[in-house]
Amino acid sequence: MSINDFLTSNNERLDKQLLFTAEIDRMTAIMRRTLLIDKSRRENDAEHSWHIAVMAMLLKEYAREEVDLGRVVQMCVVHDLVEIEADDTFAYDDQGNIGKAEREARAADILFSRLPADQGKMIRDLWEEFDAMETPDARYAACMDRLQPFLHNTLTDGHTWNQGQVRRSQVEKRLAVVRDFMPEVYQWVEKNIETAVKKGWISRM
Amino acid sequence: MSINDFLTSNNERLDKQLLFTAEIDRMTAIMRRTLLIDKSRRENDAEHSWHIAVMAMLLKEYAREEVDLGRVVQMCVVHDLVEIEADDTFAYDDQGNIGKAEREARAADILFSRLPADQGKMIRDLWEEFDAMETPDARYAACMDRLQPFLHNTLTDGHTWNQGQVRRSQVEKRLAVVRDFMPEVYQWVEKNIETAVKKGWISRM
Repeated sequence: MSINDFLTSNNERLDKQLLFTAEIDRMTAIMRRTLLIDKSRRENDAEHSWHIAVMAMLLKEYAREEVDLGRVVQMCVVHDLVEIEADDTFAYDDQGNIGKAEREARAADILFSRLPADQGKMIRDLWEEFDAMETPDARYAACMDRLQPFLHNTLTDGHTWNQGQVRRSQVEKRLAVVRDFMPEVYQWVEKNIETAVKKGWISRM
Repeated sequence: MSINDFLTSNNERLDKQLLFTAEIDRMTAIMRRTLLIDKSRRENDAEHSWHIAVMAMLLKEYAREEVDLGRVVQMCVVHDLVEIEADDTFAYDDQGNIGKAEREARAADILFSRLPADQGKMIRDLWEEFDAMETPDARYAACMDRLQPFLHNTLTDGHTWNQGQVRRSQVEKRLAVVRDFMPEVYQWVEKNIETAVKKGWISRM
């Protein structure tokens, strides 16, 4: 990043906000395991975050509890920002997920300290709420975060499931928040899991 | 897109919503003129839409009127969806911009008819509000849509300005909404325009 070309304004706060905006463009280079639906390449974090934000605008009626859509969409667009410093961890990589929480907390310290303190806290709070999956907004956002790669997998011959040699029980565990919070949508998920097992994309147990 | 692999649920409405979600993944293949800040390649519409949504969460304090951030972020993530059918039009391509409104209206007819009617209308209304740039929310979203590529240009040696042989008056016209709605931020814009002219990235008049 040619951040050296950045011209400061006469406002230190604005400079921090603009530099942070430039910095997070690195999300376009954080690659996920998921393939784009056209199978041309892997998806990046910016694309994924955008995709689940739009999805949240469409599926609210299936949520078991009332959610604040404006908050959820904000949560969706910032939920993976810490990966700029911590990188993406594949959901089904048990080894890679060891120490993930600590790694991401350190990443958050670094990343959000670049913003004015009030805004760093605002975004970190949203991310921590998302990660804890306790509030209705966070559970709904988590459903989007699980459903989107699930949809991609069903349309790309089970790409990341195959790659990760994923078991049925792992997928069910990953999608449990959808089962509990969006039961009607989970019927569609179950049907796809059945098919994925039959096609050999997911192992039976 | 292997949309043939899509398994229907027992809910026609949900099927439409999920198929629309799959369909809009094509935003990752709609390329803009803007370079990513690391200069590795051109930016796509999904990345741009995500980027301005996060930016909107950071710069609200400079808006001249009160804005509803939850609405603005939703507007940001859907504001370019019609380009799936209409493709991106370079802001400084006068020729290409002829007939853009009609082209995009037709694209919207096609695209949004794939959603349940109420949701097609909801997103189309947001897009039309954005495009009209009359409400505070739309003007603020438009500022993000102008500032983000402006920031990218300042950090990529004026890439799209050079390519388009852009004149100072064109940039000023494009950024006029920032001048009017976010005057404090426009001071930084002006300083960058000066520099861009000095460096020869923008022609003087």
